[in-house]
Amino acid sequence: MTDSKHTVNFATPRKFIKTFKKDCKETFFPDDPFGKKKIQYFIPIFEWLPRYNLHLFRYDVLAGITITSLAIPQGISYAKLADLPPIIGLYSSFVPPLIYTVFGSSNNLAVGTVAACSLLMHETLGAVVSSKDDPTLYLHLIYTSTFFTGIFQTALGFCRLGILVDFLSHSTITGFMGGTAIIISLQQMKGILGLKNFTTRTDVVRVIQAIFHNRNEWKWQSFVAGLVFLCFLQVARYVRQRKPNLFWVSAISPMAVVAVGCLYAYLGHGEQHGIAIEGIAIGRSFAIIKNEQIDGNKEMIAYGFMNIIGSLTSCYLTTGPFSKTDVNVNSGCKTPMANVVQGFCMMLTLLFLAPIFSYTPLVALAAIIMSAMLGLINYEEMYHLYKVDKFDFAICMAAFFGVSFGSMDIGLLLSVGLSLLRALLYVARPAACKLGRLPNTSLYRDTEQYPETMSVEGILVLQLGSPVYFANCSYIRERILRYINEEDAVTEYRTEHILLDLSGVASIDMSGIDTFIELIRVLKGKHIKLGLVNPRIEVLEKMTLAKFVDVLGKQAFYLSIEEAIQSCRFTMDTSTKEEALGSSKTEDVV
Amino acid sequence: MTDSKHTVNFATPRKFIKTFKKDCKETFFPDDPFGKKKIQYFIPIFEWLPRYNLHLFRYDVLAGITITSLAIPQGISYAKLADLPPIIGLYSSFVPPLIYTVFGSSNNLAVGTVAACSLLMHETLGAVVSSKDDPTLYLHLIYTSTFFTGIFQTALGFCRLGILVDFLSHSTITGFMGGTAIIISLQQMKGILGLKNFTTRTDVVRVIQAIFHNRNEWKWQSFVAGLVFLCFLQVARYVRQRKPNLFWVSAISPMAVVAVGCLYAYLGHGEQHGIAIEGIAIGRSFAIIKNEQIDGNKEMIAYGFMNIIGSLTSCYLTTGPFSKTDVNVNSGCKTPMANVVQGFCMMLTLLFLAPIFSYTPLVALAAIIMSAMLGLINYEEMYHLYKVDKFDFAICMAAFFGVSFGSMDIGLLLSVGLSLLRALLYVARPAACKLGRLPNTSLYRDTEQYPETMSVEGILVLQLGSPVYFANCSYIRERILRYINEEDAVTEYRTEHILLDLSGVASIDMSGIDTFIELIRVLKGKHIKLGLVNPRIEVLEKMTLAKFVDVLGKQAFYLSIEEAIQSCRFTMDTSTKEEALGSSKTEDVV
Repeated sequence: MTDSKHTVNFATPRKFIKTFKKDCKETFFPDDPFGKKKIQYFIPIFEWLPRYNLHLFRYDVLAGITITSLAIPQGISYAKLADLPPIIGLYSSFVPPLIYTVFGSSNNLAVGTVAACSLLMHETLGAVVSSKDDPTLYLHLIYTSTFFTGIFQTALGFCRLGILVDFLSHSTITGFMGGTAIIISLQQMKGILGLKNFTTRTDVVRVIQAIFHNRNEWKWQSFVAGLVFLCFLQVARYVRQRKPNLFWVSAISPMAVVAVGCLYAYLGHGEQHGIAIEGIAIGRSFAIIKNEQIDGNKEMIAYGFMNIIGSLTSCYLTTGPFSKTDVNVNSGCKTPMANVVQGFCMMLTLLFLAPIFSYTPLVALAAIIMSAMLGLINYEEMYHLYKVDKFDFAICMAAFFGVSFGSMDIGLLLSVGLSLLRALLYVARPAACKLGRLPNTSLYRDTEQYPETMSVEGILVLQLGSPVYFANCSYIRERILRYINEEDAVTEYRTEHILLDLSGVASIDMSGIDTFIELIRVLKGKHIKLGLVNPRIEVLEKMTLAKFVDVLGKQAFYLSIEEAIQSCRFTMDTSTKEEALGSSKTEDVV
Repeated sequence: MTDSKHTVNFATPRKFIKTFKKDCKETFFPDDPFGKKKIQYFIPIFEWLPRYNLHLFRYDVLAGITITSLAIPQGISYAKLADLPPIIGLYSSFVPPLIYTVFGSSNNLAVGTVAACSLLMHETLGAVVSSKDDPTLYLHLIYTSTFFTGIFQTALGFCRLGILVDFLSHSTITGFMGGTAIIISLQQMKGILGLKNFTTRTDVVRVIQAIFHNRNEWKWQSFVAGLVFLCFLQVARYVRQRKPNLFWVSAISPMAVVAVGCLYAYLGHGEQHGIAIEGIAIGRSFAIIKNEQIDGNKEMIAYGFMNIIGSLTSCYLTTGPFSKTDVNVNSGCKTPMANVVQGFCMMLTLLFLAPIFSYTPLVALAAIIMSAMLGLINYEEMYHLYKVDKFDFAICMAAFFGVSFGSMDIGLLLSVGLSLLRALLYVARPAACKLGRLPNTSLYRDTEQYPETMSVEGILVLQLGSPVYFANCSYIRERILRYINEEDAVTEYRTEHILLDLSGVASIDMSGIDTFIELIRVLKGKHIKLGLVNPRIEVLEKMTLAKFVDVLGKQAFYLSIEEAIQSCRFTMDTSTKEEALGSSKTEDVV
């Protein structure tokens, strides 16, 4: 039971400079970097290397070799997607992993190139310079844009602007990845069907038109080979999903496809049967930070360094792709050392095996990319979103269809726009609810949620659950007045007191305080008294500074709903007695 | 005390269509128009006219005459600000008040032109057509833009987009009005000093340059007259502030200035002494909906009709200016009938008195505008904002200096941008706090706010106070983990349970639910159990649909903190006993 000796704490508001410092810290340093040892925080290798031992190394070697077997075909395929020489894709899995080992903070993340960034670079830079007409300039632009992406990432990290990434919602990412997977898969039809002429556009309509427009170029040999490879890769993936300890089947399957493809092309002179061989292709660039949604400012800095140094060593844009990281975790990696092993294996590949990969048939690469992309279309998640939250589903679909039928930036803008609109609607139309007492308790709960609750005659208890400020204050005022009208319409008692439970109101601004003053004025006209329950420290400080506490009076602030109701009843009792009415009716109320 | 027979209500989630309808209603129809009689709601004159009587009429006549005496000089002055013939200003106080009487819902609002809109029209249209070179075209553009403003307002009202106006904060309006007042006042230096050449720019720097650049044109007679008028008007205003029942002194003072000015100009041939007389000036237009911030969708429709019909009857942009409404209230108006009286008086003025006003000296008009503008610079409010909320003050200053030194749109954009940034920060970095029990109660309150609270060893109670969704979910996860680290650093007990009070969490999205799933996984690694207290109906519905309730288990949902703590203690007791340790330590905890 409430003990009346506790009262609302009207302490002197804290100094502005103190709260300002605290707010800045929460906004820009939520991970509290200065609470830890500095050098270990900024260069995490110092954290784990001193404790490193041979036992851990055994695990990391196995994981490193496994991810290399995935990195080689992925590197070649994605380089092709960016219209770059395959060797650039291999370089990109050599230097950047070494950098990440030093600056990266995740033990599981495996570094490499990703399909979406590769395609986006091609789309953006290819619009300026043709990779066919001026391959050297195109390559230089790729390096330059990788360099500036690195600078940009580092700057964002140092300026603690990782907060921007928080505005990419889970639904946006699901839709964006799905849409990207669709357009990248369709692009692969060129390789699978062995087409020579193709569109440079990426939207679904144009690509399908291009595929059917060039029907006379379709090569059945290529198509059969592509279908076989694709089926093999999909079966390997399916096996993995069913038996997680067979993860290596899926991990080495792309490598197997490349090996078989090379062998077939080399021995069978596949190019004579319509199977084109991947020569030194060339290329397009700018990168959207996509896979980094879970990484904070520190990871951003690590990626930045990775790309700055990478761009100086013939690498293009790298990040931490999900597929590789997944394999890395399943292969049992323990520390970022797995990335060092990957880099070392890649170096050996570059030294001794690179010439072999020049025989890789286009169709094998197309099948690898397509298979990887099909895994990114998360049907279950989309269906789940549809079931749980229709607005989230709409955000997801905006990204999905925007990317598929428009372009990657249209899809992203649409989806982020919808997400922000939703955030602003949350802000502009906060949920309020009417509270009633659960029988035989002192708990007050939402009357809609708990229909067994009982309301107290003449006292209306409302709960607000949002900051009260300019964007929602006039709505809140209207909503409260509407609650009073609704209450008066259904009960025979006149509302005499209104109690606002402010426990969920984290902050208030001047417009909000003005609204409360206006509300008091309106309520006075209706002979209703306002009481505020449990205002939080930030809210009470503002109210004290704005002299609102004096306007309302300290006696109208209560520590708990129970206490407030007892006080209101007392007032009502007294006034009823003063009116010299019998107390029989009042007994009911108490 | 908590009665254990009540449990969290895991009812079947409500149908999507039902919640969707409810959300749409809250978003677009917060004033519940369909809950009332339709015709009376949309055409409010049917509401009050049947109950109208002679007694009310007496009050309205007095109020109507008083506001007319203000409307005449203001109408002429603001028409001059828009570079329009003074007669247009008088027309604008004739027809629109009659329209408002039919459609308007406020009993106090007095209709008329406002300075800011007049200046903005002049600025915008004047950039396209010179009011001097082609006065007819300019006048037509003014009518056309008034017409389209009316269409725009009506459309916003019908589409229930009054929600947009909610995003103009009190601080923005204070700063914007102050800044506008500064630039309009400076513009009046042309009239006060009797200058012939002046700049068309509005920003402070250019205007002051123009004033001093034309030093040779300064007329001391005009300056003295202007100063006298200004002092008289300011004294009248001061008297009114001191003695509110002398409001009529301030209300008729502009009329007095015009009368004295006319008399002086007519009798003394003032134009020979450097006092220019207002001829048929001409003009520029587009209008920002500024004074409507407290009006809902219905008022928007009333304003729209007012401007559509007004533009067809030689009126320019009208709205409900604060100064006139203030006078109207103080003169004791009872219904919108005061506007009818104003319209009628204005008609008489136009019929019989209009020729007299052609003698009004420019300097008198300049003094009237300047005096009205000086009243709009709300120093006290700005200081108040500075004391109470520094961020609100920054928003206000952005508007003030943006308007003064840039332009009206720069100031408005800057300020609204800052306001939205703040709203998004509220959303991205919600306040969370640690709760402790107040001694001898079952109340759990913020430990920072109530230092006397006691925490329970091994159990960490946190309160979240914001929707949990994509923009803040990773922050919330980090923040919770940081609380655990901080707790472990200061107490010798290991945290075994973490309870999240969700009373203040009004909604959640898929990203938020995924964050909780991720949190459970991380906490499991630390051997900490998660409990959720009092989730609200919207949150619980989403959690049920997303199968999160099954992941966490129904036993981890509690109705109150007290109940949750008792349950956690029971678990801790049992496990302690199982470890065959003495129960002396446990007794302390209980």
